[in-house]
Amino acid sequence: MAEFIEVREVGLRDGLQNIKTVVPTDVKLAWIKAEVAAGVRDIEVCSFVPPKLLPQFADAEEVTRRALAVPGLTVAALMPNLKGAERGAALGVHRLDYVVSVSESHNLNNVRRSTAESLADLKRIAEFLKGIEAGKRPRLLCGLATSFGCTIEGSVPHDRVVSFAEQVAAIGVDEIALADTVGFGNPNAIRTLFRRVRDATGPNIVLASHFHDTRGLGVANVAAAIEAGVRHFDASLCGLGGCPYAPGATGNVVTEDVVFLAESLGFTTSIDLEKLVEVRKIVMQALPGEAFYGQVAKAGLPKGFSYADARQAA
Amino acid sequence: MAEFIEVREVGLRDGLQNIKTVVPTDVKLAWIKAEVAAGVRDIEVCSFVPPKLLPQFADAEEVTRRALAVPGLTVAALMPNLKGAERGAALGVHRLDYVVSVSESHNLNNVRRSTAESLADLKRIAEFLKGIEAGKRPRLLCGLATSFGCTIEGSVPHDRVVSFAEQVAAIGVDEIALADTVGFGNPNAIRTLFRRVRDATGPNIVLASHFHDTRGLGVANVAAAIEAGVRHFDASLCGLGGCPYAPGATGNVVTEDVVFLAESLGFTTSIDLEKLVEVRKIVMQALPGEAFYGQVAKAGLPKGFSYADARQAA
Repeated sequence: MAEFIEVREVGLRDGLQNIKTVVPTDVKLAWIKAEVAAGVRDIEVCSFVPPKLLPQFADAEEVTRRALAVPGLTVAALMPNLKGAERGAALGVHRLDYVVSVSESHNLNNVRRSTAESLADLKRIAEFLKGIEAGKRPRLLCGLATSFGCTIEGSVPHDRVVSFAEQVAAIGVDEIALADTVGFGNPNAIRTLFRRVRDATGPNIVLASHFHDTRGLGVANVAAAIEAGVRHFDASLCGLGGCPYAPGATGNVVTEDVVFLAESLGFTTSIDLEKLVEVRKIVMQALPGEAFYGQVAKAGLPKGFSYADARQAA
Repeated sequence: MAEFIEVREVGLRDGLQNIKTVVPTDVKLAWIKAEVAAGVRDIEVCSFVPPKLLPQFADAEEVTRRALAVPGLTVAALMPNLKGAERGAALGVHRLDYVVSVSESHNLNNVRRSTAESLADLKRIAEFLKGIEAGKRPRLLCGLATSFGCTIEGSVPHDRVVSFAEQVAAIGVDEIALADTVGFGNPNAIRTLFRRVRDATGPNIVLASHFHDTRGLGVANVAAAIEAGVRHFDASLCGLGGCPYAPGATGNVVTEDVVFLAESLGFTTSIDLEKLVEVRKIVMQALPGEAFYGQVAKAGLPKGFSYADARQAA
């Protein structure tokens, strides 16, 4: 039986975050439902930032509520602070995604506070979650942004990333995502750092990757992370999103291409690529003028391609 | 000292082959010289096909002659048959690149003859080259097209690829390139097949890769080939070329991104990426309306990026 790799859709959050055109709530839900119908099981549906900062997420509560009604879907949401976590938990979201940058300068720039303050807030969130009864408690993921380098500071020491992972694990998160926020990572760094973080945090914490394809190595980095034992990958349909630090550059790794990679390597994603490619139409119609990436969508599946779980024979 | 990886430019041949706009000879030479100035050492400058078939290469002899006058450059040319080899050798080309498809159907489709006929012609070329004195004899490379799959036949058995490599080695080629002509390859297949071909052909034959990025795995496949010991990589500036079998899809792996990968992994390519990115302007001006790929060109080098050989400190 093929081993499972979970490809998580983050286009509705990380993708839309950098896009000014506000996507109507009904379109977001159509996108979510179509991905679930294609086999996607985990979607970060929105961000609980103040609507004043990002009007794109003014409908965060409605999107979350309606996504929670979609059977079989793990609904995740990004929250910037304890208040967001309280709102998300009240709605019954399945996973709360929190982010701290390993680079001090990037964190200051991104969320206007020190990494110490960000970690203190994460601790408050973890404490708050402990007060919720086990069956209803959302899982807690902490993304470590700029784990592979920072546009302000340049290289980020691996020791510092490992130290952040240890602190975050001690706080009590369920999952840690190493994020290549600006596309400075390469396969060697990916393999080395994921292995070190795995050794430092033990087998009980889920390790996920959040890679951007800013400099063309995104899919190669996913392949390296798979080699290092990672089985949970953030990706964005159409590679939506771009990079606020490099105008014209690409965004997250492309969901369709990551699924194609994983299936080609003999892992099952449970995702039907042809159905997934169809979902692009919803996104493209909603966002005229944006750049859309993804190569398997243009070229189609190889002749004779078979899914790792050979579902088409069923 | 960093180990050397040779990134070979094939945009002037494989890239232009699929493009109708005929690029003036002077522009081709400007492109070649600018790449050499950026540190590129090996360029496939043209194809010796009949001009009636491909007007793009009507200037093949002039391009070859003028490229041979560029100091420090290894000049390669594609030749479809013995006649082409004779023309190339007479000009003093450094390497003759020949191609046979491992897929019988693809070979029939591509060059209108059986693989047995193609191999027989390769043998005649090798015999002809033996008649040239050692110092003036061009090297002979045979590309094995569709080594990782074929749009007509689907999957291509590894055993058949290894058998072709053995036959081609016995004929007396200096180099073998495994080509993922249509972008069906994946990192596992790349690693497995290059290792098998290495074992079957021994240490004296140079193994090269010729990958297309048709389905988004191109750079990941290069990373896998590096792991398998390959040190010679075909690539195309701007990812020029597209795929005749998948309209709208991308062409060869992008030279700029492959150089960035190799340097990021600690290999030296001798290529200055910023200068290389500048060469794109020549290509883009010459070919308005074409699609241009390449992500490091859009995003720029990471802050603090250092070349594997730290040439910038020199």
